[in-house]
Amino acid sequence: MRFDIITVLPGLLESPFAHSILQRAQKKGIAEIVVHNLRDYATNKQKSVDDYQYGGGSGMVMSIEPFAACIEKLQAEREYDEIIFMSPDGVTLNQSTANELSIKKNIIILCGHYKGIDQRIRDIFVTREISVGDYVLSGGELPAAIVVDAVVRLIPGVLNDETSALSDSFQGDLLDAPVYTRPADWRGHKVPDVLLSGHEAKVNEWRHEQALERTKTRRPDLLE
Amino acid sequence: MRFDIITVLPGLLESPFAHSILQRAQKKGIAEIVVHNLRDYATNKQKSVDDYQYGGGSGMVMSIEPFAACIEKLQAEREYDEIIFMSPDGVTLNQSTANELSIKKNIIILCGHYKGIDQRIRDIFVTREISVGDYVLSGGELPAAIVVDAVVRLIPGVLNDETSALSDSFQGDLLDAPVYTRPADWRGHKVPDVLLSGHEAKVNEWRHEQALERTKTRRPDLLE
Repeated sequence: MRFDIITVLPGLLESPFAHSILQRAQKKGIAEIVVHNLRDYATNKQKSVDDYQYGGGSGMVMSIEPFAACIEKLQAEREYDEIIFMSPDGVTLNQSTANELSIKKNIIILCGHYKGIDQRIRDIFVTREISVGDYVLSGGELPAAIVVDAVVRLIPGVLNDETSALSDSFQGDLLDAPVYTRPADWRGHKVPDVLLSGHEAKVNEWRHEQALERTKTRRPDLLE
Repeated sequence: MRFDIITVLPGLLESPFAHSILQRAQKKGIAEIVVHNLRDYATNKQKSVDDYQYGGGSGMVMSIEPFAACIEKLQAEREYDEIIFMSPDGVTLNQSTANELSIKKNIIILCGHYKGIDQRIRDIFVTREISVGDYVLSGGELPAAIVVDAVVRLIPGVLNDETSALSDSFQGDLLDAPVYTRPADWRGHKVPDVLLSGHEAKVNEWRHEQALERTKTRRPDLLE
């Protein structure tokens, strides 16, 4: 699977893609993540990628031309399944979207900044607009990293223990039960007895009850 | 405002905090962001920070002791308003939580990994559990960066143009209207006439209509 990320801040994405699961996925050749500097595609003398917005108002708007140039160069090299624009007014990312994207081959992600990007980029090129949540961020870079992380970890072979991803929160419509590790007693705070009992059936029953209880309390919407 | 982030992957957070608005906020002395390596607080010989989970099952669980040691060291240095644990089963981050956090002084953020963290850390130390959305990620680092970014940009003096943050999506319960910049005609795709008209009242009316229409279509829940 290949991600091409187009951004004015390629440096911001360096460390997230160089660690942990994303690093491992790239080393194993399972995922390729290429970050493109939008400024390299600026067409004017000043190498600017934004401009004042038509109709007035504060905040700069990112221009269509550099995005178009970068997207069209990439499209000449390979076919893309999706061109995603990260935007707070996109469709909110959830686990099923992550699952769906994890079986695609080539994906372009556009990162916005400032007041937004020229609407024509969205109308002409973008196939899918994704929001990571109902909050405003400085730019689309962290959201792009979130999408890449959520998706890449689902590709078979990326996680060391494949059962781990399947038992995650949201994959089974219930939140996870509480987890504990050593010491069994920490300053008088003890691990629930059942987990130390060795009775697998009782442990499973307790975990299911706890997961159900936690979901009811915290996220009743997931049970509807 | 100060953020202390406790993580097993401090390197992952290097570049997000060294660019853009977060870099500017730190240079201006408005925000201080300190990343702590959890492994420096490991108490055993192997410097491990995780262990098998009680009750069995795949996935390692992060131990209470290193987190406790790091948190207690920080608490001895200053008072903290919040100790936040980033978790998919936390309360979903939204703009009003970001607004609320932006007036705090000192915040600790704990990043989980693997199967989760020992429940006792959550019970004893954590004051608030925050999720950035309904999807599973490799760890709490990107979510922590999201929280820091969403919060820091709201502190007065961080954004160059203070009106920009106020007119963002979600601050006014409506999504943003489409934005456009030059050229007015790109390969036959034209900017709406009204934005070129110079009639401020008409532009504002159009923007309001568009924002309302976009919100109705994409996020009717915001209008309820």
